[in-house]
Parts: sequence; C-alpha cells; structure tokens
Amino acid sequence: MTTVIDATAQAAKFKQEIRAQLATLPERLTLVGVLAAERGPSATYAKYAQKACEEVGALFRLRHATRLDVESVIREANEDPSVHGIMVYYPVFATERDVYLRDSVDPAKDIEGLHSYWARSLYQNRRYLDSQRHLKAILPCTPLAIVKMIEAAGAFARSGRPLEGRTAVVFNRSEVVGRPLASMLAHDGATVYSFDIDGPLMMTPASTPEGAHRVSETSIDRAGALARADIVITGVPSPSFELVSASEIRPGALCINFSTYRNFAPDIEGKAGAFVPRVGPMTVTMALRNALRLFQNARTSGSLRLGADAMSGERD
Amino acid sequence: MTTVIDATAQAAKFKQEIRAQLATLPERLTLVGVLAAERGPSATYAKYAQKACEEVGALFRLRHATRLDVESVIREANEDPSVHGIMVYYPVFATERDVYLRDSVDPAKDIEGLHSYWARSLYQNRRYLDSQRHLKAILPCTPLAIVKMIEAAGAFARSGRPLEGRTAVVFNRSEVVGRPLASMLAHDGATVYSFDIDGPLMMTPASTPEGAHRVSETSIDRAGALARADIVITGVPSPSFELVSASEIRPGALCINFSTYRNFAPDIEGKAGAFVPRVGPMTVTMALRNALRLFQNARTSGSLRLGADAMSGERD
Repeated sequence: MTTVIDATAQAAKFKQEIRAQLATLPERLTLVGVLAAERGPSATYAKYAQKACEEVGALFRLRHATRLDVESVIREANEDPSVHGIMVYYPVFATERDVYLRDSVDPAKDIEGLHSYWARSLYQNRRYLDSQRHLKAILPCTPLAIVKMIEAAGAFARSGRPLEGRTAVVFNRSEVVGRPLASMLAHDGATVYSFDIDGPLMMTPASTPEGAHRVSETSIDRAGALARADIVITGVPSPSFELVSASEIRPGALCINFSTYRNFAPDIEGKAGAFVPRVGPMTVTMALRNALRLFQNARTSGSLRLGADAMSGERD
Repeated sequence: MTTVIDATAQAAKFKQEIRAQLATLPERLTLVGVLAAERGPSATYAKYAQKACEEVGALFRLRHATRLDVESVIREANEDPSVHGIMVYYPVFATERDVYLRDSVDPAKDIEGLHSYWARSLYQNRRYLDSQRHLKAILPCTPLAIVKMIEAAGAFARSGRPLEGRTAVVFNRSEVVGRPLASMLAHDGATVYSFDIDGPLMMTPASTPEGAHRVSETSIDRAGALARADIVITGVPSPSFELVSASEIRPGALCINFSTYRNFAPDIEGKAGAFVPRVGPMTVTMALRNALRLFQNARTSGSLRLGADAMSGERD
C-alpha cells in the first residue's frame, strides 16, 4: 500500500504555525508580488500567493508590470521600508536576463531564496549568517518544500543527520530547484544522484555535519541509481520524459513529483512506500516561512537591509 | 571605398600603453586563467591570453580544472594575494550554472567584467565606485573592445557624448555582450535598436550624461532599423542568420562583427564606410586593461578585496 501525501494538508499545518507567529509581530507582514504576465501559470501562482497571505494574515500587494518595468518595480520594493518580502513571478524574459532580475531583489527581502547570495550560503552549507548563530540563512522555497515533504513522509532519521545513509535520486538539476535540492539532501546526510539532460552527477555528504557536500562525476545510469534509491524526486517539465515506473523503483521508496507534468507512471502506487504527487501548496507556504524568518533576522540585526552589501555597487 | 579595420593593429597600440604602465608597478601583474576544456575555442582563447600577457610583461598562470573543480580553483585564486586577475574560459557547464560561476569570481579580480556587481554598475551608468571618483568601474571586455573599435573608426563626436545623435543596431542581446553593449552605446549618446530572437528593444540615452539609459519596446523591424543605422554590430553565433547585406545598410555605415560566424555579406565592402571583421584581439587586450585598472583601484583603496562584500555571505 502506498500512502499518498497531500501537500495541501501539510501546508495547512505550517500555515497555522506561521499565522500564530505573525500575530505576535509588531507590524503586519507585507509582501509584494511582481507579475509581468497577466495570464498563464504566473498569474495563477500570484493568486495562490494572495490566498496564502490571507490565510496567515499577511498583507499581499500585487504589482503588475511590463517586462521592462519589472526591475524598477523590484527596486522600489527593495527601498520601501513597509515591504518585508518580494516574490517575482518568472519567467519574465525567459532568458539569462531573469538571473539578473533574481539578483536585483534585496537578499533581505528575497523570500523565495533565489538570490545568488542565498545560493552561495546554501552550497557552502552555511546555515547562519553570523558567527553567533542568531541570523538564519534562507533556503529556496521549492527545495525547502520538498525536504519538508520528506520529513512529513517519516523518512527522517531519529538521530544524527536526518538523511544519514539514505540514497536519493533527483531528476532535474536546474539552478533554482534541482541543484540546490540535491545539495541540501547531501548536507542532510544523503548520497544523491542528480540527473539532467547533461548526464548524472553524484553529491555526497561531508564527513562532518557542518561541511559542504562533495560533487563528483559518476558513471551510474538511471536504472542503477533508481535501484538504490530510498527517495526518488522528479521535476522534468516535459511530456517526453520517460515516466519512472514501478519496475524501476525499490519497494517502499518515497516518490515525490514537483513537475507540473506527470513524471511517475501510475503503477508506482502499490510499490512505493509513499507518493507526493505535487508540492506547490508547500512552496508558497515555505515562502511565507522565509518571510517570517527574514523579518525576525531584520529585528535581530536591527536592520532590514541585511545583505544590502551584496546589492550595492557604491563604496566610499 | 570601405576601410577594413584590423583589431590586431588596434590591440597592438593598447598593448604598448599597457606594457609601459605595467613596467611602473611595484610588482608584476599576475593573472590566472581557468580552463576546463582542453580543446576547442576555450583552449585557443587561453593561448591568446598567454601570448597577450607575454607581450605586455604580465605573468599568466594557466590552471587546468575539471568542470566540477572550476569553482574551487576560482575560490583559491580569489584568496591568493599574489593573483591580481582571473579569467575563466566559458562555457564550463553551458547551463545557467555558468552564471553562478561568473559570480564566484571576486569582482576585484574579475578582469573580464562579467560579475553581476559590474553589470549593475554598468546598467546604472555608474562609472566610478566611490563618490570621490578615484575608483573606476570595470566594463565587460568584449563590449568595451567594440566601443574602442568604434572610436578607432573615427565615429566618436568631438564634443559632448561620444555617440550623441548616432543610431546603432546590435544583433545579439546576450547578458555577456549584446545587452551591456547596447546600454553602453546609449550611455554614450546613441539611440540603439537591439535585436534578438525575442524581438527588438530600443535603448535611448538619458537627458544627462550621468543618467542611466532608458529601454522601451519598439515595433521597428530589421529593415527599418538598418536603414537608420550609422553603426551596425553583429554577434549572432549561427549559420542560419540572414547575412546583413549592402542593400540593407546606409552608405558609409560602420559595420562591426564580433561573432565567430560571418554575419555580414561580402558586398557590404564598397558601401560601408568601415568594416571591423573581428574584435577578438581587442577583447583580450581590454581584459589586460581591466586588470591594470583593478590593480590601480586596489592600490588606491588600499585593499585587493574591493567588492569582497558582494562575495561574502558571512556577517558579524
């Protein structure tokens, strides 16, 4: 029997917690969403964010912009002290220029955790920004949502690193989800096989929990990796991806799909231990959790401009 | 009659100047090249850099690395006080991950001017890093090489902004060459039509020389833009690009090709005022010029770690 785990139900638990914590803040948490496409998935995500904000008692301001205005709308939100967090609905240009936009968001307001400032701390397994360990680093919200679903599935170890000794396979090595996710799993103790059209890479844990993961080339193929995997995670946004089927996975494996396309064959239900068909509702919830964390960091450090150094080119 | 302008000859003049200035430095300028591909264009570029360094009296250390080791080799060079500048031969991964690598180079050693730290100052037309205007910003070396070729062709105005009143067309809007180039031309006073598979954009100068350029959508097509262009610049790395032909350009137009593919039809010679068939030799020379500038910035500011704030995630 395969347990199907609903991300909406998990998200509800987190939202309850977030709502309770937001109620204790001295001001109302205010987020800005920046939307360049009036239709399609981006507009839908913006509606989800709106609804999630209402559920936790945060204020959500949706800013509509042309693609050429997105950058100035982001900069205004960076400068506006009444704004605590910013979400940008990508793609805007659907080119490398979107990376530039991601890095235009002040890291201290980047509730999606996509800025290269956060990517650097993630890859180096730096979980705090200060040596006193008061200021927590932000993790990108989709990878974080997936890790929380792994925890919800009961796949965390009771002691030591949460994924110590586990093997995971991730299909997708994008800079926004697959690569950070694979690194996070390795930092949590797992051996990870990361697959992309470019081939596989292997991420392994450091010898100490504080160390950064190691990456190496590997000759393992899909079949070999899946045969070892306790956790299989798919995020291939293409109808031509060969669906992961029951014959490929281990009995009891945890299967998680974060693609908008179906990446698992229906027959995995019955062989998998648990199946998470989608993580979307958890993703927006993790963005809210990040917003709360950034708000708390700002209160602790006495500045909303944490990370502003990474943004400024002006020096005196 | 079309004057063909040879980038090698122009580069030689700059190298002579750079050589003279390097000779006055208290230590020998030392650059590191990071090469992940042992063959192909990257290996060739590395050889060019080696040769250019010899010509100006700089030390060049070529570091060979696997693609997975490139990042740690960059970080070592960032930390090594005997290294003044770093060049990385892309593509390494040929995915968005290369953007992450570009941003792993300490901006204070980024002689190619590819770090988002420099991109931000470029797009905002910030030519100095400090309010005293002692520390000069770095420009990306290929766009800079092209601007220097425009100057060499005698297309700069004698007063005011150098390209005041000129119209330019740029085919290519990549984040590393075409988009920064179009912005630089607009900052120099030109109206620029920037073409990409994604369509055209128009960049126009600010009302003051210190202002940042403006960008707008435009309905102009290739024929309309070329009919107005004093300067035509091409950088389309594809054999399927329809070559720019004599019938499309204005008599006397300055034509510059920076693609490794031929983007102009042979018949432009005769109608164009001047033709620059390649800029490669100037590109590596501009990287050396940037290296000298960064060295001087570091001496002025008393720190080689200029820009280090943009790199560090650790805060106390």
